Amino acid sequence: MNIQRKLVEKRYSKLSIYNGVAYFAATPDRPFDVSATIIPQARQILARVEERLAEAGSTKSDLLFVMVILSDRNYLSTFNEIWDEWVSDIIPPSRACVIAELTNPDMKVEFIIHARVGLAH
Amino acid sequence: MNIQRKLVEKRYSKLSIYNGVAYFAATPDRPFDVSATIIPQARQILARVEERLAEAGSTKSDLLFVMVILSDRNYLSTFNEIWDEWVSDIIPPSRACVIAELTNPDMKVEFIIHARVGLAH
Amino acid sequence: MNIQRKLVEKRYSKLSIYNGVAYFAATPDRPFDVSATIIPQARQILARVEERLAEAGSTKSDLLFVMVILSDRNYLSTFNEIWDEWVSDIIPPSRACVIAELTNPDMKVEFIIHARVGLAH
Repeated sequence: MNIQRKLVEKRYSKLSIYNGVAYFAATPDRPFDVSATIIPQARQILARVEERLAEAGSTKSDLLFVMVILSDRNYLSTFNEIWDEWVSDIIPPSRACVIAELTNPDMKVEFIIHARVGLAH
Repeated sequence: MNIQRKLVEKRYSKLSIYNGVAYFAATPDRPFDVSATIIPQARQILARVEERLAEAGSTKSDLLFVMVILSDRNYLSTFNEIWDEWVSDIIPPSRACVIAELTNPDMKVEFIIHARVGLAH
Repeated sequence: MNIQRKLVEKRYSKLSIYNGVAYFAATPDRPFDVSATIIPQARQILARVEERLAEAGSTKSDLLFVMVILSDRNYLSTFNEIWDEWVSDIIPPSRACVIAELTNPDMKVEFIIHARVGLAH
């Protein structure tokens, strides 16, 4: 069974697909919004996830597990409000959330994702 | 192939099963024990893992990978003693352990888990 | 379908294989190099990854996702240079990188990996 790579760059492929599972990370848009709240970055990362899923023929209903990494615990409640709205029309995936420093000091949130490859793929 | 979701809440499903693999996070019991040692929370999280595995028809022998996240490096040696006892009657899974802030300041340990779905499922 | 465990120790199996996927963590060599740069540890961990992959009949082309955990953001640019060279002869896997404290204060980098099991396995 082959591995499919999409959005291949020198350092990483933004999406790897194998045996019905899509593996990818997601970040907000660069340059990162530096306003005081996490609202813009949270909306951007969720839109990015939908974009990546579409590359695999999938939608947010196909998410298996989302590891959410926030750079500051103070972002948690606002992030959760935006997340909750985003998953309000699906059966939500499994999820864990931890607080950690991210590679760019202006990045407030990053995801590591496993998703089912869509039937349309 | 369908995704099975179990223990579905508004924010996340506590267990997602797809293609023979169960994806889930585990935490100790709420309200989190705030005593000085990690002993109660370590015992609770391991019991929780067994509960979640049972939902997938699995046992601890079916664990594939456990990412252990401790909120303080000082918990490591005690955590490892309790872990070692817990895996003493199985061939242990693969594992990594990192130190990071968790979403609740009283939570001392969290797991991210991939496990084989049990034959009984 | 069976789980195959390799390099089994009391605390964990260094490699677990199931349904065509190899799950493992990787670290640099012990005792950890404590020089000021991440160069030795970065080279060691990449060599370790190739060793583990070989146990699964795989090569670096089979990597699906690599979660890179660095203990200090200052290591990032040097780490990336070494990584970029390492993946220069393959289509690179998907990847995320976060900064977090590792279990040993002298360990500067750790990986959590999912890889395709090689055809030769």
